Amino acid sequence: MEKLYVIKIGGNIVDDEAKLSSFLKDFAQLQGKKILVHGGGKLATQMAAQLNIPQQMIDGRRITDERTLRVVTMVYAGLINKNIVSALQANGCNAIGLCGADGNAILAHKRTRSNIDYGFAGDVDEVNVNLISSLLDAGLTLVMAPITHDAKGQLLNTNADTIAQEIGRALVKQYVVQLIYSFEKSGVLINANDDSTVIASMTPDYYADLKKKEVIFAGMIPKLDNAFKALQEGVDTVIIGKAEELPALINGNAGTTLRHE
Amino acid sequence: MEKLYVIKIGGNIVDDEAKLSSFLKDFAQLQGKKILVHGGGKLATQMAAQLNIPQQMIDGRRITDERTLRVVTMVYAGLINKNIVSALQANGCNAIGLCGADGNAILAHKRTRSNIDYGFAGDVDEVNVNLISSLLDAGLTLVMAPITHDAKGQLLNTNADTIAQEIGRALVKQYVVQLIYSFEKSGVLINANDDSTVIASMTPDYYADLKKKEVIFAGMIPKLDNAFKALQEGVDTVIIGKAEELPALINGNAGTTLRHE
Repeated sequence: MEKLYVIKIGGNIVDDEAKLSSFLKDFAQLQGKKILVHGGGKLATQMAAQLNIPQQMIDGRRITDERTLRVVTMVYAGLINKNIVSALQANGCNAIGLCGADGNAILAHKRTRSNIDYGFAGDVDEVNVNLISSLLDAGLTLVMAPITHDAKGQLLNTNADTIAQEIGRALVKQYVVQLIYSFEKSGVLINANDDSTVIASMTPDYYADLKKKEVIFAGMIPKLDNAFKALQEGVDTVIIGKAEELPALINGNAGTTLRHE
Repeated sequence: MEKLYVIKIGGNIVDDEAKLSSFLKDFAQLQGKKILVHGGGKLATQMAAQLNIPQQMIDGRRITDERTLRVVTMVYAGLINKNIVSALQANGCNAIGLCGADGNAILAHKRTRSNIDYGFAGDVDEVNVNLISSLLDAGLTLVMAPITHDAKGQLLNTNADTIAQEIGRALVKQYVVQLIYSFEKSGVLINANDDSTVIASMTPDYYADLKKKEVIFAGMIPKLDNAFKALQEGVDTVIIGKAEELPALINGNAGTTLRHE
């Protein structure tokens, strides 16, 4: 089976023009089929502030009221998505930017299972494998904004990490999927404040051990739980690391690689 | 050859929720291959005002400085485009929203031929016929935002009427193209203030005659000049009329139809 890279680029890179530009150059040069999933939370928060729309975050998740949904739709699917696509095109990568409503790429439903009302937040139901495969087969690189829809006319704000993971697991029958979470840190760290303490490789057993010893804690736990879930569901490898080191991440020479065993 | 509808929806419909929703229902029901091109100038002007970005218009064209480009990219390619796509999906129409950077759909260059500096305004060089045909062949309906790119990383603001016309003329070898400009008026009017004075049918000779008699003047002239140019370049028919009357426009029972002779 052919390899597919599904690469998530984190919010702290997306709003840094120099870092983003350098990352996109590396991404464009990556050979083979690939999908880029971007966040953009910091830019959305700035735009909401400029428009005097108060923002409320609970455990890092944005409460998406109607006005906030307009902001994230504009900022993610418009401003960020189209600037990324345009930069990739300039680097010789034939990118196409989509949100989940486009071609019914990602179907979701408004989150209701929680005690907290997250507003127009979407939990993913289905990734449109046929659409995505056929666009990839046409030689296009997909750039996905973290906005989904419910097929009843409602756009929904959806976590970009989740979108990367859902796309990755949906495509395991068609491709050998490499899921890469790139952000501002060098990987999963033994000491959260020391970038040189990257854990090069992790199995589920080792992860369980590190959790038990509280070496890994707080925000990294849901991220890693999700990443190991993606592995269980057929994703070949998950790599977590620094956006600036994309080529080394791909080659396994940087970052943290999660393995089945 | 198969028929293709290229339908431009004007700014005064796009910002009217009820009219837009009704139009999109009609558009979704239209059988066959179709492309929707939308404007959104009024919403962009509102957003610019909220963000305290002064707007300057010359002859109805927006001077697009860097901050204004960010606004139109957000509003056209994000807010408006994705809400239209989502509404069409809810009406059973498998829509995909693109700007000109996506898949290199519409290549343009920054306008320099004018004495006026329009800023980041794009004049179209090439429409990507292969991309558009292959998406249409995959059963998708295209929803085009009036943003193009120069393939060097620069997004450009481009008039939506022009985009509709350029797409129409580019596809005449593959399709029998019907180009439809839908807006708030019933068509080309003998008396600009009386919606009942629609001219049902116009040939180039009749148009020349009406221009000479100054029955047609001001803003309608560039619109009609462009429309007749599209006819000359192989577009089958051009229809101009009211967005609320889309089914009747298609059937030739409303609006103004421009014909070769």
